[in-house]
Amino acid sequence: MIITSLNNEHIKEINKLKEKKYRDITNTFLIEGEHLIKEALLEGLVKELIAVDKLDFNYDGNITYVTSNVMKKLSSMESPPKIMAVVYKKEERETGNKVLILEDIQDPGNLGTIIRSSLAFGVDTLVLSPKTVDLYNPKVIRATKGMIFHLNIIVRDLEPFIESLKKEKYQIFGTKVDGGRDIRKVTIPSKYAIIMGNEGQGMSEKLSKLCDENIYIKISNQVESLNVAVASSIILYEVYNNESNQNR
Amino acid sequence: MIITSLNNEHIKEINKLKEKKYRDITNTFLIEGEHLIKEALLEGLVKELIAVDKLDFNYDGNITYVTSNVMKKLSSMESPPKIMAVVYKKEERETGNKVLILEDIQDPGNLGTIIRSSLAFGVDTLVLSPKTVDLYNPKVIRATKGMIFHLNIIVRDLEPFIESLKKEKYQIFGTKVDGGRDIRKVTIPSKYAIIMGNEGQGMSEKLSKLCDENIYIKISNQVESLNVAVASSIILYEVYNNESNQNR
Repeated sequence: MIITSLNNEHIKEINKLKEKKYRDITNTFLIEGEHLIKEALLEGLVKELIAVDKLDFNYDGNITYVTSNVMKKLSSMESPPKIMAVVYKKEERETGNKVLILEDIQDPGNLGTIIRSSLAFGVDTLVLSPKTVDLYNPKVIRATKGMIFHLNIIVRDLEPFIESLKKEKYQIFGTKVDGGRDIRKVTIPSKYAIIMGNEGQGMSEKLSKLCDENIYIKISNQVESLNVAVASSIILYEVYNNESNQNR
Repeated sequence: MIITSLNNEHIKEINKLKEKKYRDITNTFLIEGEHLIKEALLEGLVKELIAVDKLDFNYDGNITYVTSNVMKKLSSMESPPKIMAVVYKKEERETGNKVLILEDIQDPGNLGTIIRSSLAFGVDTLVLSPKTVDLYNPKVIRATKGMIFHLNIIVRDLEPFIESLKKEKYQIFGTKVDGGRDIRKVTIPSKYAIIMGNEGQGMSEKLSKLCDENIYIKISNQVESLNVAVASSIILYEVYNNESNQNR
């Protein structure tokens, strides 16, 4: 059966997942396009597929077939995909030893890009402040290129969370545009957390006080700062290479 | 005098700058918000300001005062700014020794971020293929954080341009997701050009053939590739630090 009506009850339920409220209640969210779906399938997170055409890959779960018109209603994109999915949010795992903390990042593209780089450079756990842009925003998900399904990502009140890490002997690194030590000259221990601040304001004073050390990236004095996703990625890249050198 | 009418001829002329065609004919483009305007003023590129309120900084050029309603028409943003400007495109300078080449980058945020990082890490000249997203797209300009006014950026057909660089003894580095040499192990000479490929396809075969060497960034095998603005920035960061070490 192909659902043709925009007023179909099942379609209306799925469409509600565009709102954060319903994503939180159901613990599920929507993804669009085959690439993301294949990444979600790898982790067993697909609840249901919504497709316009017959699948050209193996899948033995629930499928709802719909018309292009229905797909257009469900999609967040100007050119709707041929396939979407309702997927479960990944369950939280225990916090690993390599932690990246984001304080109030606002741009969905930045968050998605940081998720992609975090996995590329061996971060175990990504921690988001409650005011960070919603992780399940379609633009965030697209920018992760599917890496959202493979990384342990948690939302926490940052002050008490960092306090608890300190008790467990994590070394806490803050980031500042100037001040602190050049990232190339810092030795990162095996248990660490790195804090990246908001796009406009940088890291807050209250978190700054909790840091053992501040680090920065040397740039030309013509430029005030780097994009936060770029700065995060360069720091993670340095730490990752630092570790590989030590392990040799 | 405050212009209140959306049909005012001068406002209609300015509004045309939303289209690439008119930006090309007049050699000017629109920018929004005080931060960008201050960066443009530093380079003497402001042709005319458009403001809702009296200025709180020194400026003795042309100003057109408008109502919020007119500003809303001219702005590309959901919350229109209090001030906009018509600015001249920067004149091309001679190609420097440190060149970054972008092949068909499509995402405005990526291009803007690469411009910001290029200036942060000492690139002299940024070269865009004709199919790259338009440099004067408002989203590109915003993502540059005003750095668009300080960098030499040119548009060229890449094959003949790279051929000409080779004749002038530039070393040409291609970038590939795998294959080539780890960027940390490459010594970059004083005259170089680095090519970054398109978001989806990477660097094309035809440009690949022109490269003296391919470089890559080591990442976890869980991840296929980095975001192109991140990859560009990490490579430029390495080259920049490489050079500072050599100069010590």
